[in-house]
Amino acid sequence: MSGWLVIAGLGPGNEQLVTPEVSVALRDATDIVGYIPYVRRVAPRVGLTRHESDNRVELDRARNALEMAAAGQRVVVVSSGDPGVFAMASAVFEAVEAGPPHWRDLDIRVLPGVTAMLAAAARAGAPLGHDFCAINLSDNLKPWQVIEKRLRLAVEADFAMALYNPRSSARPEGFGRMLHILHDICEPKRVLIFARAVSTPEETLRVVSLAEATPEMADMRTVVLVGSSATRVVSRAGSPFVYTPRSVLA
Amino acid sequence: MSGWLVIAGLGPGNEQLVTPEVSVALRDATDIVGYIPYVRRVAPRVGLTRHESDNRVELDRARNALEMAAAGQRVVVVSSGDPGVFAMASAVFEAVEAGPPHWRDLDIRVLPGVTAMLAAAARAGAPLGHDFCAINLSDNLKPWQVIEKRLRLAVEADFAMALYNPRSSARPEGFGRMLHILHDICEPKRVLIFARAVSTPEETLRVVSLAEATPEMADMRTVVLVGSSATRVVSRAGSPFVYTPRSVLA
Repeated sequence: MSGWLVIAGLGPGNEQLVTPEVSVALRDATDIVGYIPYVRRVAPRVGLTRHESDNRVELDRARNALEMAAAGQRVVVVSSGDPGVFAMASAVFEAVEAGPPHWRDLDIRVLPGVTAMLAAAARAGAPLGHDFCAINLSDNLKPWQVIEKRLRLAVEADFAMALYNPRSSARPEGFGRMLHILHDICEPKRVLIFARAVSTPEETLRVVSLAEATPEMADMRTVVLVGSSATRVVSRAGSPFVYTPRSVLA
Repeated sequence: MSGWLVIAGLGPGNEQLVTPEVSVALRDATDIVGYIPYVRRVAPRVGLTRHESDNRVELDRARNALEMAAAGQRVVVVSSGDPGVFAMASAVFEAVEAGPPHWRDLDIRVLPGVTAMLAAAARAGAPLGHDFCAINLSDNLKPWQVIEKRLRLAVEADFAMALYNPRSSARPEGFGRMLHILHDICEPKRVLIFARAVSTPEETLRVVSLAEATPEMADMRTVVLVGSSATRVVSRAGSPFVYTPRSVLA
């Protein structure tokens, strides 16, 4: 019985962005657990069972993975991006804390990955090159008032921002409300980047001003980056470079 | 003449955390440019020139790299972690904006990497599992007042925080001042993680409460993670798991 549980980040989509450490864990696993599209990124092979589950059942999925590891299996819970950023790692430790005491003694490791905001920022230039924050816009797990408060304080702090899960068919209005708040407190020229499915064949990147931004520019495969007041757009033939300078003047 | 410039993230230190995409760029390069310890992570070989430069000369280094790419060389500027997070990508685009117009037409790509805070968070559990921010504590490039304002607003927003460059021999006092501010506005039980040289043989990880934290726990190889008010410590034999729950209650 030497089971283990690895919570691994598969990166934003392209196999060239999966770390060797994660590839080794996937190779050694007996069981892959996760949301359907992420599990399907792992090729089937003899000796490997792939456990696909639907969205929004993170705690059930985590408990299932922990039970299998406790029974001696070698389990990889897969997330896209980094597993610690709005993904499965928190759910697993939540399950550990609430679960039987022997779960705490399991061999549990988190393997980091390239999270969506870093892949998106890299495509645009360096929009997160100075202090920044990451906010999950989904209000499934927190009240909208908390999101609004954080947005307002983040703008006051003049952070660049990465907004995850900006919009889904179940929550079509939140992102429009978010844009209204930004209109309220930012200049119309504030830079927004809509980065969709970065590193996959469906990748699109759109650099617009706040004045030009519309809710339809985002969906669940989009991460939205919002510049700080200092973020610069360097125009050129093709998509511009966007970067936030390293310095703040006194 | 088909020179290019890649700005690549080498990850936190371990070769198992370098993405395949970055490894390919390093293999195809004629020139590697960067701060001495990062350049030395790339093995010497015939046909490769390694250009080592000191810290704090980022703009000179960027211009040098751009000139070589414009002359047809295949140049990789290396950063540790992710090049877009308090690293070389911003400096390169700053140089592009201020430089000759033909630099804007160069083939410039940023290749993301695993940034220090994600590697550190993975080791501890999932302390950045909910909304969070990243702040560079170095006041080389911004006044201390800006850092203090951002810290206070980040705590008010109840972000978890990743603090980069917390302390150096040239700036021994800043981190102590930062702890004073936290004492002022956070409960003594607030969780801090001092993660040093994660993924290297010198790795250390220390989980303490704010009441226990001292300035000496940090140096320039440390990233400090500060939990939100909701961050949980799951005790066990050995280092505890630390995670921030995905939910905020109304």
